[in-house]
Order: sequence, then C-alpha cells, then structure tokens
Amino acid sequence: MSDLPSTVMIQEEGPREGFQIEKGPIPTARKIELIDALSETGLKKIQVASFVSPRAVPGWADADEVVRGFRRKPGVKYHVLWLNEKGLQRAVMHQAEGAGLEMYGSVSTTASESFMRKNTNRGFEDNLRVQENQIKLYQEHSMPVTRASLMTAFGCNYEGPVSTARAVERLAEILDLAEGLGSNIEILSLADTMGWANPSQIKQVVGAVRNRWPDKKICLHLHDTRGLGIANAYAGLQMGVEIFDTAVAGLGGCPFAALKGAAGNVCTEDLVFLCEEMGIDTGVDLDRLVAVAQLAEEIVGHPLPGSIMHAGTLTAARNKAEAA
Amino acid sequence: MSDLPSTVMIQEEGPREGFQIEKGPIPTARKIELIDALSETGLKKIQVASFVSPRAVPGWADADEVVRGFRRKPGVKYHVLWLNEKGLQRAVMHQAEGAGLEMYGSVSTTASESFMRKNTNRGFEDNLRVQENQIKLYQEHSMPVTRASLMTAFGCNYEGPVSTARAVERLAEILDLAEGLGSNIEILSLADTMGWANPSQIKQVVGAVRNRWPDKKICLHLHDTRGLGIANAYAGLQMGVEIFDTAVAGLGGCPFAALKGAAGNVCTEDLVFLCEEMGIDTGVDLDRLVAVAQLAEEIVGHPLPGSIMHAGTLTAARNKAEAA
Repeated sequence: MSDLPSTVMIQEEGPREGFQIEKGPIPTARKIELIDALSETGLKKIQVASFVSPRAVPGWADADEVVRGFRRKPGVKYHVLWLNEKGLQRAVMHQAEGAGLEMYGSVSTTASESFMRKNTNRGFEDNLRVQENQIKLYQEHSMPVTRASLMTAFGCNYEGPVSTARAVERLAEILDLAEGLGSNIEILSLADTMGWANPSQIKQVVGAVRNRWPDKKICLHLHDTRGLGIANAYAGLQMGVEIFDTAVAGLGGCPFAALKGAAGNVCTEDLVFLCEEMGIDTGVDLDRLVAVAQLAEEIVGHPLPGSIMHAGTLTAARNKAEAA
Repeated sequence: MSDLPSTVMIQEEGPREGFQIEKGPIPTARKIELIDALSETGLKKIQVASFVSPRAVPGWADADEVVRGFRRKPGVKYHVLWLNEKGLQRAVMHQAEGAGLEMYGSVSTTASESFMRKNTNRGFEDNLRVQENQIKLYQEHSMPVTRASLMTAFGCNYEGPVSTARAVERLAEILDLAEGLGSNIEILSLADTMGWANPSQIKQVVGAVRNRWPDKKICLHLHDTRGLGIANAYAGLQMGVEIFDTAVAGLGGCPFAALKGAAGNVCTEDLVFLCEEMGIDTGVDLDRLVAVAQLAEEIVGHPLPGSIMHAGTLTAARNKAEAA
C-alpha cells in the first residue's frame, strides 16, 4: 500500500505510564529489569521515569534510583517526564551527574478547557503564561523546545466532542507562543487522552494539521479506551504519521471492569505487529518484545491488555511452513 | 469519508460461538435470555444455536430447547448452524414445527489444505464431493444455496501465509461447483479463522475478490486473535464491505493467557461503535447493546474481551455537553 510510511518511530512509554498507575509497590530492581529488557528489543526511544511528587504519584517515589540504575544501551534514547520546574530540576541534576538522558522541552495545551481546569486548575489564558515561563526556563538551561502537545485533541469526557477546527486553533495558539519566543518546534503531538477518536476523525485532524504545518512531524498518542486504538493508528499510518507513543503490553491499562477508565496507551507490540505485517519497518524484534510484555505482566502481577502477547506471534508458524 | 459504506449489516454470532466454547454448563434459560436481549438491540440477524453432536460440543446439547424457547422479534432473522446432514435434519424439523428460522445453504472450503485435514479429515478433492452432496441435499429440501465461505483466507497456523491468488483460486473452485449445480451465490464470506490478517492484506484480498466477482456481496468473518480485528474491519469498510460476522462482548474469546487460542470474533459493540462514530448506520442501539454485553459477561461468569462494554460509550458525555 503506497500511502503507508516505510518506517515508523515508536516511543515506548510503558514504564512511565505503567508504574505510575499500578497500585502495588513494585520493587525498583524490577522496574530497572523491565527497562533493561526493553533496551534489547530494538526500540530506539524509551521514557523511563516520571519526576513527579511522590505524594501525588507514589509509584514514582523511586524515580531517582530507577534513572541511576538502568543500563544505557548505545543507540537508544532515554527520556524522563516532568510536569513542573521541580521535576525539571531533578532531570537537570541527573544530567549533570552524567545520566545521558535525551533532554528537550515541550509545550502543552488541551483542546478542552474543562479538562485543563480539572487537570491543572488553569484556564487557557493562565496556561499560556505557564507555558511561556516554561519556555524561558528551558532557555536558561539551554534546552531546545521541540515538541508541542495537544491533549484531548479528539474529544473530552467533561466537554464532549472536539471539532477539527478547534483542535487546530488550540495547537496554533501554543505553537505561535513557542515560535514567537524563538523555539523551533519539530513535532506536533496529538493525544487522544480519553479515547474519543475514530479513524475518520484521525484522518481529518491529521490532514488539517499537516495542511497547516506541512514541514512538521506529527506524533499520535493514542489510548485504547474503547477498542479503536489500533484502527486509529492504522488511520494515522494511512495519513503518513511516522511517530507513535505506545506502552509495552498496554501497561497503564487493564482489561478488568474494576479498573475502568484506566485503559492505557496503544500496546507497543500490537502496533509493531500491525506495522511489520504491512511492511513498515519499526526496527523492533517482535518476538523479543513479546517476551518483555510477558515480563511486564509478571512484574505487575495481573493480566495486561496486549493481544499478541497472549496469542503469540506468527513466527513459529511461518518458520514451520518454510521448513515444510 | 466517501469511500465508506453508508450502512452495514452485522450478523451476530455471539450466542453460537460463545456457548460452544464456554466450559461451565450454562442454563438453557440464560442462553434464551441473552438471545431475547439481543433481539431488542436493533440487530437484524442473530445466529442462535449450533446443531452439532452433544458429545463433540456439550455446550450445545440443549440446542433444540434454545431454538424452541427464544422470543421471535419481528424484523429479526434467526439462523442456526449445522455442519452435516444430521444437523440439517434437526433444523428442517424445527422449521416444520414453525420455528421461523432463516434457512439457506452454504458451501465452504479453506485456503489451507492442512487446516481442512485437521478440521474435517478431508483433502480439497474430498471436500468438493462433500460440498456437492450438500448442495444436492439443500436442493431436495428446496433450500437456496446463497453463501460461499472461505476459511483461513488470510493465513493458517499449520500452513503459514496464504497468498491472495490462492485465496481467490480456492473460492473460485467452490463457487464454480455451486453455480454449476444451479445455485445463485450472493455472498462471499472471507474468514480470518486464525487471526492472520492485517489491514493491507484485507484490502488486497477484498479487492481481488471484488474484481473477480463484482456483483457479489463480501462478508468478513474476523477473529481478534492478535489485536488487529477492528483495524481489519476498518480496512474492510474502506473497501466497501457491508457485511460482518461478530460476537457480542467478543463472546468465544477471553482476555486471559490461560485460554489462549480462544480469541473470538470481532466484538459486536466495538464494531458498532467504530461504524456509528464514522457515520455508518448499523441500525443498532449501542447503549442497549453494551448492556447486553455486560449481561453476557455475567452469564459466562468471567471477563470478556470487549472494550467499550468496560469503558462506556460516549453518550453520557455527549448529552452533558449538549445540555451545558
């Protein structure tokens, strides 16, 4: 199919997303074990930890130890998340210690102001001031600001549907701010934060964003809340999207009704399977990644939502067929 | 999106698929309860039972009672499965009693001879003779033969990948047989029996089948074994496919590793959600169907693989947004 990209870049967020949401305390050594295993799969970018308040997110109270402890695999970029200046300072400290993280700034907004108020207690105007201060902070640390993210880009549980025009308008606002302050935004990230997107909408929004900013790359951050995650990724691929945020085994989600609302990012190995079966190169060894997904399930101690980790890849059957 | 159909026909197979695979004995009354609930959702075709050997499939030992017991909803077509003459005789008997079933014959083959041998202990040549006898039997009962099915159309665990050319060739063979005997085949059903298909392959095979037989309708029978079920359905919709076999709640499948290999048909309500969100009319009341999916989970007594039945529809959020 000529409209699909020849390669995609998969940004693994499983450790960060997963360990943040799991209730049971997970030993630091096991978090590091998972990251080290992910490093051996061919993934080129892994988000390894979240520098957030241990009171707010107890699952990341050991972020410093995790960041110090994992094995750096040459060729893999490691990234950490922070949400405010305090978190950034921790990342900067690790970097000064020689952590070798990939450091870049990003600006962020939402299509839904209701969500922003619930999430950060800010309105759109306040957020622009906060983002402006963030950019200046990054500049003080000589960090490039290369990514602009739009959350609830496809709909919001508090506010309902989001029109394509509104999504583009909100993205333009944050982009104008960042570029007005001298940033060179390379990647526009569209997040389906609450699982509202459908494939037709993905095509519309990605198309509108591409038309407006043809020189920027588009990243899709998809949640599989309502079962359309992989179909939405496929729609993105058909529009030439080459960057996806995903989580191994669907970490951060859970197939149980008891944890509803906790449906996580699109599952990394299911997306790798989708891509590789269609001839799109991900650079990932799928069988090795499936083994890591099974390790993740063992570490968290309950079933995770990934499909191919339970059904098995096609490798064995293909090899048998070739040998016959 | 102009390439999508405006309506689709969803053939519900959850009761037949689901009760055949569940281990625990499910009371006949509860099977009937599920069918009656499905009849109230707007679904227009429901496969209600399987007339198979109670020794081979204990879950359908009560097929006669189920078929006698469910409430006929005007406008809904009810269908039963049989695999041999004995099963057909049971269906004919019910029909003579006034069961009001939708009765039609179908011919069936597989793209993989290995699968056919494992499944029926026949080779391709034997199968043609068996199918010929079936057609003659249908003719004796004045039943039209309107459907031709190709199993393992996209790949086979025993035999590996299936080329598009081979899928078309096998379908042509069975079609020539049926039409040579005077049947008017209206629907060509392509089954991804073992979950090998990917969206690009769906487009290729559907395209090749459509090119060869432009006047026939195409039905996709997809299994969600490796997480691509809904993406494959979307690829089918993009190719104009208007008929899908599905199972409410993903009945017949299970998200647990312990039951691997048991991944069922694409989930009805997730497919309805996909379609309705993209403006494709299914005739189904999604909120009502989600309630039936939750009933199915309660009846089988373990989590089922459906997504939206756990996450919830967008209806409440939309209504709230409109009221605001």
